[in-house]
Amino acid sequence: MIIDALQYSNWSEKIFRQMNEGGVSAVHVTICYHEDFRETVEQISAWNRRFERFSDLIFQGFTADDVRRAESEGRTAIFYGFQNCSPIEDDIGLVEVCHRLGARFMQLSYNNQSLLATGCYEAEDPGITRMGRQVIKEMNRVGLVVDMSHSAQRSSLEAIEISERPIAITHANPAFWHAALRNKSDDLLKALAASGGMLGFSMYPHHLKEKSDCTLESFCEMAARTAELMGSGQIGLGSDLCQDQPDSVVQWMRNGTWTREMDYGEGSANQAGFPAQPEWFRDNRDFANIAAGLRAVGFNQAEADGIMGGNWLNFFERSFGSHQAGSQEQAEVVDLAKERSHSL
Amino acid sequence: MIIDALQYSNWSEKIFRQMNEGGVSAVHVTICYHEDFRETVEQISAWNRRFERFSDLIFQGFTADDVRRAESEGRTAIFYGFQNCSPIEDDIGLVEVCHRLGARFMQLSYNNQSLLATGCYEAEDPGITRMGRQVIKEMNRVGLVVDMSHSAQRSSLEAIEISERPIAITHANPAFWHAALRNKSDDLLKALAASGGMLGFSMYPHHLKEKSDCTLESFCEMAARTAELMGSGQIGLGSDLCQDQPDSVVQWMRNGTWTREMDYGEGSANQAGFPAQPEWFRDNRDFANIAAGLRAVGFNQAEADGIMGGNWLNFFERSFGSHQAGSQEQAEVVDLAKERSHSL
Repeated sequence: MIIDALQYSNWSEKIFRQMNEGGVSAVHVTICYHEDFRETVEQISAWNRRFERFSDLIFQGFTADDVRRAESEGRTAIFYGFQNCSPIEDDIGLVEVCHRLGARFMQLSYNNQSLLATGCYEAEDPGITRMGRQVIKEMNRVGLVVDMSHSAQRSSLEAIEISERPIAITHANPAFWHAALRNKSDDLLKALAASGGMLGFSMYPHHLKEKSDCTLESFCEMAARTAELMGSGQIGLGSDLCQDQPDSVVQWMRNGTWTREMDYGEGSANQAGFPAQPEWFRDNRDFANIAAGLRAVGFNQAEADGIMGGNWLNFFERSFGSHQAGSQEQAEVVDLAKERSHSL
Repeated sequence: MIIDALQYSNWSEKIFRQMNEGGVSAVHVTICYHEDFRETVEQISAWNRRFERFSDLIFQGFTADDVRRAESEGRTAIFYGFQNCSPIEDDIGLVEVCHRLGARFMQLSYNNQSLLATGCYEAEDPGITRMGRQVIKEMNRVGLVVDMSHSAQRSSLEAIEISERPIAITHANPAFWHAALRNKSDDLLKALAASGGMLGFSMYPHHLKEKSDCTLESFCEMAARTAELMGSGQIGLGSDLCQDQPDSVVQWMRNGTWTREMDYGEGSANQAGFPAQPEWFRDNRDFANIAAGLRAVGFNQAEADGIMGGNWLNFFERSFGSHQAGSQEQAEVVDLAKERSHSL
């Protein structure tokens, strides 16, 4: 089973077919970088049309069981996530509403300071805010996973501590391998693992050693060293694949509407656009390369299967239901998903 | 001339008449605590109806000249301000739009962390954020005054440093007199004065020594000691008068929609509502008490006149026009105000 815990591509039938060819059972797709609640609902609306039109290839995922169903039916379950907390605006009541609509991951911040936590590009990181503490509690209650991929270190450590349920870093790599601002320290990765959390390895060139020239072997050796640090059950993939996107999209990701100057984020004036993918991971058909690479650096088959998807499946199982009344809520959501599936 | 740099009352003809009786030429009114852009526009719409209905008593102020006009016509000029940056959401483009609509003050944060700066109730204060630096520059450009009344100390000091134009603390008192979280340190008040900024003294009981029992003499002696610290030209009034408001309003100010628990702010479970005003400042008819009190503690007439309104008038003059093309912009706005006045 293959699960990718982060993609933001320029969605098309071609890409959904590639997911199918690659045997990808679940993808966590980003539906928000800067959007407010209403704009996020527009993204959901657009996904509903895709689920209708390409029902032979994809459907909306709500639970871990949906991933198993996708695998057995040869389709891909699409799970929604936010790379920012902008969809809940300043309203804690929107946490439950977003979860009901299908959101399963929400980053507490994206590069900059948010109402909840600090982003990794700020000079200072004061940790989780007053509102952040309230919102984490509410996310725990409803089953919306705290994702700290773009957050700063102290905020991330505090999120792990405050959250009563394991959190995730869906797409980043260890800083010991490539010291990018977005990659994570040993201390943070150890705390994440100790709390039952998950790290998804990114294949986005700015997060890779040697960037676009990174070799598969180097990537898989990094995975092996991370397994020594975190355990092989707490790591998976979060490719950060941004396939077929024009460069205007990465400019919008970085600048949104918060500045009148140009911010190049992980890039630079000379390298302002999307970088080229490494040759061993161009699109969803290439996951087999990674599975083989993991075996080649010494992971056994069970460990490699875990990293390719099994570990995320376990995490989904524990994370997406309501805290107090887990089974009932989950059953309801499954019913809803079945209903949608039957009506197609 | 009397100028009050902060009121948020349950607006009515009665209150506008009291402004008139009290000889108040200008009031900076809060039109936003938690509102987003669209909700703020609703407040503006409601004020437009009031300007229409009570045109014999009030009109919208855009410039310092409008205060002089109000004085000569025996009316009150109403200037808009925000106690939070929520009206600009995450969009720096809304700074200029809000200024055009009449906003003249905007707090960078209200008690909690915002996208721009830290509020005085947060445990940590990392200073002005990445977006905050961009927004201060834009506020400087268009003539929207940075107000740090509810912000934390480091953020306030950094705002003074980053801003190329003087900033304001429209409603707060010195902490040396009453050590409330909302009151300000000597260091901050000195930095504010050194940069040409203004402090408006609050008559809100939680900011007063002995709260509702505070005496006029104690208040005026505090003003005298503050004048020694800041100079008598950099202080004025910002009463924070919340007349005729039900207690549900102060609960909303404190809790907005950011928490599911109860936050009592400056109050407590036993004292959850609005506190009673001191007997010497019940409403807009009582400013004469303060003018007399200031003379009684030794201010000369010119100094007392400055504190009652002249100092704010000077500040308005320097602050509300565009930075690059001040005079032209200001002239345009005056024309707009005259147009409105003629059409009534």
